[in-house]
Amino acid sequence: MHRAAALPISIAALLRACSTAGRAMAASTPFVPPPRELLRPLAVPYRLLLGPGPSNVSPRVRAAGGQQILGHMHPEVLQAMDEIKAGIQYAFQTRNRLTLAISGTGHCAMEAALLNLLEGSDTVLVGTNGIWGQRAADIARRLGAKVHELLKPPGEYFTLRDIQEGLAQHKPSLLFITHGESSTGVLQPLEGLGELCHRQGCLLLVDAVASLGGAPILMDQQGIDVLYTGSQKVLSAPPGSSPISFSERAREKMLRRKTKPPSFYLDMGCLASYWGCDGEPRMYHHTVPISSIFCLREALAMLVELAARLPTVTTVRVPEGYNWKDITTFLMDKHNIEISGGLGPTAGKVLRIGLMGHNATQDNVDLLLQALRDALQHCQHSRL
Amino acid sequence: MHRAAALPISIAALLRACSTAGRAMAASTPFVPPPRELLRPLAVPYRLLLGPGPSNVSPRVRAAGGQQILGHMHPEVLQAMDEIKAGIQYAFQTRNRLTLAISGTGHCAMEAALLNLLEGSDTVLVGTNGIWGQRAADIARRLGAKVHELLKPPGEYFTLRDIQEGLAQHKPSLLFITHGESSTGVLQPLEGLGELCHRQGCLLLVDAVASLGGAPILMDQQGIDVLYTGSQKVLSAPPGSSPISFSERAREKMLRRKTKPPSFYLDMGCLASYWGCDGEPRMYHHTVPISSIFCLREALAMLVELAARLPTVTTVRVPEGYNWKDITTFLMDKHNIEISGGLGPTAGKVLRIGLMGHNATQDNVDLLLQALRDALQHCQHSRL
Repeated sequence: MHRAAALPISIAALLRACSTAGRAMAASTPFVPPPRELLRPLAVPYRLLLGPGPSNVSPRVRAAGGQQILGHMHPEVLQAMDEIKAGIQYAFQTRNRLTLAISGTGHCAMEAALLNLLEGSDTVLVGTNGIWGQRAADIARRLGAKVHELLKPPGEYFTLRDIQEGLAQHKPSLLFITHGESSTGVLQPLEGLGELCHRQGCLLLVDAVASLGGAPILMDQQGIDVLYTGSQKVLSAPPGSSPISFSERAREKMLRRKTKPPSFYLDMGCLASYWGCDGEPRMYHHTVPISSIFCLREALAMLVELAARLPTVTTVRVPEGYNWKDITTFLMDKHNIEISGGLGPTAGKVLRIGLMGHNATQDNVDLLLQALRDALQHCQHSRL
Repeated sequence: MHRAAALPISIAALLRACSTAGRAMAASTPFVPPPRELLRPLAVPYRLLLGPGPSNVSPRVRAAGGQQILGHMHPEVLQAMDEIKAGIQYAFQTRNRLTLAISGTGHCAMEAALLNLLEGSDTVLVGTNGIWGQRAADIARRLGAKVHELLKPPGEYFTLRDIQEGLAQHKPSLLFITHGESSTGVLQPLEGLGELCHRQGCLLLVDAVASLGGAPILMDQQGIDVLYTGSQKVLSAPPGSSPISFSERAREKMLRRKTKPPSFYLDMGCLASYWGCDGEPRMYHHTVPISSIFCLREALAMLVELAARLPTVTTVRVPEGYNWKDITTFLMDKHNIEISGGLGPTAGKVLRIGLMGHNATQDNVDLLLQALRDALQHCQHSRL
């Protein structure tokens, strides 16, 4: 008893519209019936995602994902894309103008980096100490590049010396390395790598899918030429849109290409134009995943908002129905813990929690959270 | 006064964590400040999208897009992927087992089709009568294929004779043709094309991004070897996940490849394994865009629900606060229009509207909608 919708036309109606041809063929090839499993509603149980990603999505990002969509050339979408660029520049700590989000998940960004930077039989050196190096090597081979793998047992990282020897031996035009090796739990130190590569005329490509936002990375200062990440790890947006940035050095290598990259969808020249990275009027290239763009924009906005938060003193809004003084008194009397109320403009409105020096330990955080839970149970105003 | 979140670490904190190296470099390269534009909330105005796509997203699909996400190998996600396969088989009218959704927008599906089917210097014939043929030719050239374009002025379509001559002249292994040429508004007739191609040992690849669901297409009956569409047109889901299907003939050509496809992200062998299309245990390949998967599943479910609706008699639930008899009487007395109430199990619950034969015109639909609007204003029960 639905109201009949005009569009999409029902498949049954389409079949009828197939006129004589459809009728003639109906005897030999039976109609594919509507699948019954799609008559059940979608069920999405809640799961706390504490694996190596994806991580859960915040209410704010979920709200963005549930927004009505807009056209892919609408000013509001282009503005969100500009804001994403600025957010990525901040998250990556880079001033690269060729900074944007790939319309695909992390592997798509890996592929975009490699296929734009490699041409013909370019040589690439891949640091393989887990699965991501293996995958990069696989992609580079598919692209026809000469691939050398610098192998380390899983669980180990590459020293500057390892890299130096590899560069000297293979003279690659590109070094691929994984910052956060999520298959082994290794964080690759990046200091000095860029300098080492550049001295050998090599570009440094870093996979930061599992690390960006959770471990320090400074694209410009560390001399990284190409950096990409996923949206579904620390950024906590749904997978489907992957931040990437190219240094001027990397951009120049792409400009020197004699052949077009083997992909249109991931052609960085076309993408730069669509994303307004080249100072020219924007050109339609493909339809960006609008909802993913909204989600990524909000995820980056949340990262930006965090930036202005003091790590030594955490301010917490006093919950409705409570008086700050009852809470601080209760904590001191029952738990021997001092925290403070607000000061000046925040007087009466917030609690201020200091975690500094000797006191900044996980045990103290746990103790305080336990005590605050206790306070919330005992200090609520009686409703008079 | 936010509660400080533990993750992601603020970029400022990350910089501090960069220890001595960070400090030494801070003088030369200043910190990239948080962009102010991301401190504003995301604003998404409502727009009625009556262009050639994307189209607006239904409340049901929006709700799916705002769901919390799950892991990309969770049973519920794999089940949604299975349901998507079944939904695409139904929408495409195909029993192809190699049926899945590409993790990207329509162009990504176009690229996936071409790069999996073309190898080395394979010859492809591209029907170009608008932009989509041009783009397919561009992609095929990037892949190193021999490309011949069958040109028609924009606004025209290809006759069987045009195609026959092109096939005879160029002997391609693949013919690309656009079903719904959204740049010119042309619908390409597909009857007989498959047979023609197969007689010449050529595969038929059809772009149905702008037509699928809105114009009849019968993949198996019409002998189409590869068919793809987007999610953001008639299916009315956000862009980012693109249905695609390969015939056995196409699958066999891919199995005969001597080299791996030049893309890992779009390698149909790996995707078939991840999507459970090859009868083998599923293998992780990449992280699918979970939210897009949920949205596409719901969009296909809505298409399936439509399937069981009779086009000649539309049943409409009697709105709350109304008696069906008041409405039918009002329509007859004031507008000279007959519609009926329910029958048997639907008695008292629905209105039944017939649109058949001579009466099935747009004018009559408009007249009835106007009359129903009038009835809704005059027949509401007084609240006693």
